Amino acid sequence: MLKDKCIKAKQAQAALSSASGQVRNNALELMAGALKREAEYILSENERDIEAARHKGLSESLIDRLMLTKERVDGICASLMKVYALPDPLGKGSVWTRPNGLTIQKVQVPLGLLAIIYESRPNVTCDAAALCIKSGNAVVLRGGSEAIKSNIALANVLRGAIEKVGLSADCIQIVEDTSRETATELMKMNDYIDLLIPRGGKSLIQAVVKNSTVPVIATGAGNCHIYIDESADMKMALNIIENAKTSRPSVCNAAESLLINRSIAKTLLPLIKEHLPKVELRGCSEALAILPGITAATDEDFYTEYNDYILSVKVVGDVREAVAHINEHNTKHSDAIITQNTAAAEYFMINVDAAAVYVNASTRFTDGEEFGFGAEIGISTQKIHARGPMGLDELTTVKYKVIGNGQIR
Amino acid sequence: MLKDKCIKAKQAQAALSSASGQVRNNALELMAGALKREAEYILSENERDIEAARHKGLSESLIDRLMLTKERVDGICASLMKVYALPDPLGKGSVWTRPNGLTIQKVQVPLGLLAIIYESRPNVTCDAAALCIKSGNAVVLRGGSEAIKSNIALANVLRGAIEKVGLSADCIQIVEDTSRETATELMKMNDYIDLLIPRGGKSLIQAVVKNSTVPVIATGAGNCHIYIDESADMKMALNIIENAKTSRPSVCNAAESLLINRSIAKTLLPLIKEHLPKVELRGCSEALAILPGITAATDEDFYTEYNDYILSVKVVGDVREAVAHINEHNTKHSDAIITQNTAAAEYFMINVDAAAVYVNASTRFTDGEEFGFGAEIGISTQKIHARGPMGLDELTTVKYKVIGNGQIR
Repeated sequence: MLKDKCIKAKQAQAALSSASGQVRNNALELMAGALKREAEYILSENERDIEAARHKGLSESLIDRLMLTKERVDGICASLMKVYALPDPLGKGSVWTRPNGLTIQKVQVPLGLLAIIYESRPNVTCDAAALCIKSGNAVVLRGGSEAIKSNIALANVLRGAIEKVGLSADCIQIVEDTSRETATELMKMNDYIDLLIPRGGKSLIQAVVKNSTVPVIATGAGNCHIYIDESADMKMALNIIENAKTSRPSVCNAAESLLINRSIAKTLLPLIKEHLPKVELRGCSEALAILPGITAATDEDFYTEYNDYILSVKVVGDVREAVAHINEHNTKHSDAIITQNTAAAEYFMINVDAAAVYVNASTRFTDGEEFGFGAEIGISTQKIHARGPMGLDELTTVKYKVIGNGQIR
Repeated sequence: MLKDKCIKAKQAQAALSSASGQVRNNALELMAGALKREAEYILSENERDIEAARHKGLSESLIDRLMLTKERVDGICASLMKVYALPDPLGKGSVWTRPNGLTIQKVQVPLGLLAIIYESRPNVTCDAAALCIKSGNAVVLRGGSEAIKSNIALANVLRGAIEKVGLSADCIQIVEDTSRETATELMKMNDYIDLLIPRGGKSLIQAVVKNSTVPVIATGAGNCHIYIDESADMKMALNIIENAKTSRPSVCNAAESLLINRSIAKTLLPLIKEHLPKVELRGCSEALAILPGITAATDEDFYTEYNDYILSVKVVGDVREAVAHINEHNTKHSDAIITQNTAAAEYFMINVDAAAVYVNASTRFTDGEEFGFGAEIGISTQKIHARGPMGLDELTTVKYKVIGNGQIR
């Protein structure tokens, strides 16, 4: 059944792969139009998911992630049209001729069939489908059980839309059976799936990395650090910490841990505490000595992505100690230094092992739109294939087209 | 023990990562010099491997793969100096400024710690170490048990050499325990190893792909096809088949399967048989009808990489049937069409799913040197991270360095 979907998607992708950029863009336009037109059907199916979620006693925040409204559907359509406006990632490349006369073209081509395993937010269904169609890839979407009726409705609408430009509906597949078994089965479909991207919490991502034999890109785990160097501009430091911690604590580029230089800790820590009244600080023993009221941080705290109004705090001697601590505890996502010292900034940027390293800016900027790439399918925290925000180019591979007139070796 | 080696290598890599291109090149020069100087020690250790291999009754061809000679050591040194001469892959990148004033540098940086699992040829120890040092990566080398004394000797020499330029010997680690358990353990070292590359036969590669939780690049499986279209130049077709099949049958870019258009099969197949007297043809029923003396091909034959003087043969109706057969049976490595028909060539190049697709040239050209990349660490048959010949750039990742003056989101 799941294998059937993969086979169909793989077959459908062959035609998608050679469809022009214009046809793929027409598909995106019709996808957005159809979502708008079918909003009522989508919202009524979403309502059934919401009811089931309330019945199961899901938290209000989870229900909020699950919920679609007229405005949210409009937002999804707007996202699709943003993908529409991005440059075509396919066909780019270079050409050279070898001394023996062989002409080699290195061309960007689709990866083939992608699978996305994700959790409750139904907008991922549309965003992922749009990025895949734009980049010539077919996609198997395996969302969470809570959103299944919404996801099926969305996929029905999207599948109908792409057929109107002559593409096969089978380019977009939704897995109706949301059991753990189908997810595991998907992770072993090496003959069909070229890349699997998990989107969701840490445990989902770890389970996929551990169990998948299909190539995976791990995304989104973000234990992000801010180190305040002794030469930091205090006002800037306060602003950046506030922004990185509190502007949206639930996202992966929010700060989770604050490192502070010993020489300024006594002055700055009380100001930080005062400046962030909603944030629970969990400190090392030195931080506790300065701020006696706060919670003591355990070793575990320094490894934790809270996604909440909590910040671990550690006093360090210098940038070297800060970097060593970060490399031990971070998730290779985004880490920042606040400093006026060029040598410290250089040392930090070279030696911190992360997709993005910041000097005097908030970690919250690690994002496809903020980097200027347009839409993203996730933020890769691994090093192979893609690192940092993954846009359309990261959904492609290369192919060498070699043209000769009888060359032999 | 193995974990210790990984920890040491990871620590040593930090300094290697920020060493200049000049220092890394000096290391390569000293590595080559030391191998030349210590040739006697290396050959005597290799002799012990050879004796053990004879004692175990290994085939002469395996013993030949294992054997080092003065000339072969010189060849290894020459390879190292080729890597020396290649451009530095580190530090390349682009810079842009966002409307909010953030400057973003996208820079090529080392992957970190690589692991290579390989079979009997000891030259891989040196080639892999050279490519890793040049690209700023530390490496854990796990070769086969037959070559263990040679590999330890080579690694000792290389480790001593890099220390002389101030790099830690721990950048190069050799796994002395060649049991299957250490290989499996290596495949689970996600906290330390950034990329694992298996080099060897199909069963080794499949075992690694199946068991590794560390990211893997699958290399080297090559069931390569040549399709002779009805419009092919017959003389060119004969030349290319001969070259692709017989110039070096044991390598992954050698042809394993011949597809021939029905309209020319009766004329061309007898010529091919005559032209390739050393090659055993295994044909489909139509090929058998034309060449009654040949062996019948089983379904299994069409999936087989013989690495020998054997060629499967199938008669097909047109380029579409050829492409469908290839996509079902190939290993996504290299496939060629011989044709004078531009439309057929276009269709073939777009629709065959392989790292390299050829028109009127031998598949034997899929190779880092032949493509103009210099040395290669393998030929990737997967789509993520690298596809086709993998040179120094494919041993790097990117890092975003974001420089602000207090920007918040």
